[in-house]
Amino acid sequence: VAATNSEKTIGIVAGAGPFAGQDLVRKVLEQTLATHDQDHLNLIALYRPNEITDRTEYLLDSSLPNPGYAIARQVLDLGNLGAEIAAIPCNTAHAPEIYDVIESELKAAQCPVRFLNMIQETTIHLRTYYAHIEHIGVLSTTGTYNSRIYPAHLEMAGFDVIVPDPQTQQQTIHPAIYDPQYGIKATGTVTPRARQDLLQNVYALLAQGAQAVILACTEMPLAIREQEIEGAAVIDPTLILARALIREANPAKLKPHAPTESQISC
Amino acid sequence: VAATNSEKTIGIVAGAGPFAGQDLVRKVLEQTLATHDQDHLNLIALYRPNEITDRTEYLLDSSLPNPGYAIARQVLDLGNLGAEIAAIPCNTAHAPEIYDVIESELKAAQCPVRFLNMIQETTIHLRTYYAHIEHIGVLSTTGTYNSRIYPAHLEMAGFDVIVPDPQTQQQTIHPAIYDPQYGIKATGTVTPRARQDLLQNVYALLAQGAQAVILACTEMPLAIREQEIEGAAVIDPTLILARALIREANPAKLKPHAPTESQISC
Repeated sequence: VAATNSEKTIGIVAGAGPFAGQDLVRKVLEQTLATHDQDHLNLIALYRPNEITDRTEYLLDSSLPNPGYAIARQVLDLGNLGAEIAAIPCNTAHAPEIYDVIESELKAAQCPVRFLNMIQETTIHLRTYYAHIEHIGVLSTTGTYNSRIYPAHLEMAGFDVIVPDPQTQQQTIHPAIYDPQYGIKATGTVTPRARQDLLQNVYALLAQGAQAVILACTEMPLAIREQEIEGAAVIDPTLILARALIREANPAKLKPHAPTESQISC
Repeated sequence: VAATNSEKTIGIVAGAGPFAGQDLVRKVLEQTLATHDQDHLNLIALYRPNEITDRTEYLLDSSLPNPGYAIARQVLDLGNLGAEIAAIPCNTAHAPEIYDVIESELKAAQCPVRFLNMIQETTIHLRTYYAHIEHIGVLSTTGTYNSRIYPAHLEMAGFDVIVPDPQTQQQTIHPAIYDPQYGIKATGTVTPRARQDLLQNVYALLAQGAQAVILACTEMPLAIREQEIEGAAVIDPTLILARALIREANPAKLKPHAPTESQISC
């Protein structure tokens, strides 16, 4: 597949968090039809993590600086560097309190970059491939949990949404990402405890009737790589976002959907 | 660990090849001392693979355009984007025929970016941690093989270098990277055959007396993740380059060497 003049350059706000950023880049590469180095898409991954304050911390305490401003500046910088489409692989940054600031800053600056919305892309994906499903479970950070961003989108799309109870959210799921001893962000690695705690909560959502579970924090797919658990689809918004970026950059280079997806959509 | 004003921004020419580029980014993240997203270093990964023609093809046919010019332009662009240190995770690009062009172009443009040399960094690493070793095996692409860049550096450092015979190089090792059906670059994945063929040649070098083996093509560590095989160290120049970039950006954020390295250096 040759590069064409109409092929667009992808920009990724890759520092929030950095491991999610590199996971998104990897998925863009893996989902691109390419047989030579030269076939791959142009992509700029910008890791400036120290400018972007923690998204969940802000959602829990709105007296802190809103990270949306720094994210918007980085999208503008990506545009100046040549990016024409951009995205941030951080679900929590899509909470309206943050996302609205990103959007209004980009609009005020007349930013020409098309900024993809991971939550919208995930919702469209579910409506397209999982229309037969009713109940969807969502695992996320406490910031995303409190913002109800996934339930809001999914319920509008006609799905019933199941989330953990607040105590489990606080005591088990959030620490799997943030705990200084075993959290994925804090340790920069998937500790056995983080995987165990997340996996246990996938099973808990399935037991409550979820027919698919969204790993709605971009660190979670680093720990749970299964595409299916007990016959239920495990939905990875990072993978969906990677495919959406390729679709926008050059749809001719997008790999066909994996067989598991089409089987499930039957 | 807090960001300091003196901390430098890393630039990576990540498109040659893209999977090696993202492997280097991942290793920079993994080797950084960080407990929060915000602790990670500023880094720009520039994937513009279609500008950089194949390095081995050029070394085999010097009538083709020299990819060094495109690489130098991308380093200059990384500098304009704010990078102060840069590197390219491609051993073949370090062959003098290409590397000399990169260096002279950067010099002519008075490029202020400090451009690290992966072969030099690997040689320094070996002299530091493997001074007790005499015989080092090298597996590479045919471009790197013909350029004798590793033997030249390593012999100057006092090591004896063992490489495969030309027929094995041509018929087994090069195809593990480039074969359209099972090569790592061509398929964008580590096929069982590619791993098998590379691993078999690691064993062959050990049988010839190698006490350590350098995986001197940045796609090889994607296939061989072992740090040690039959007691011999497997040397990953991408990992060494990742650590060199952190050392230059902010040495206080460099993780200590892995225990296997210090054990071996005893």
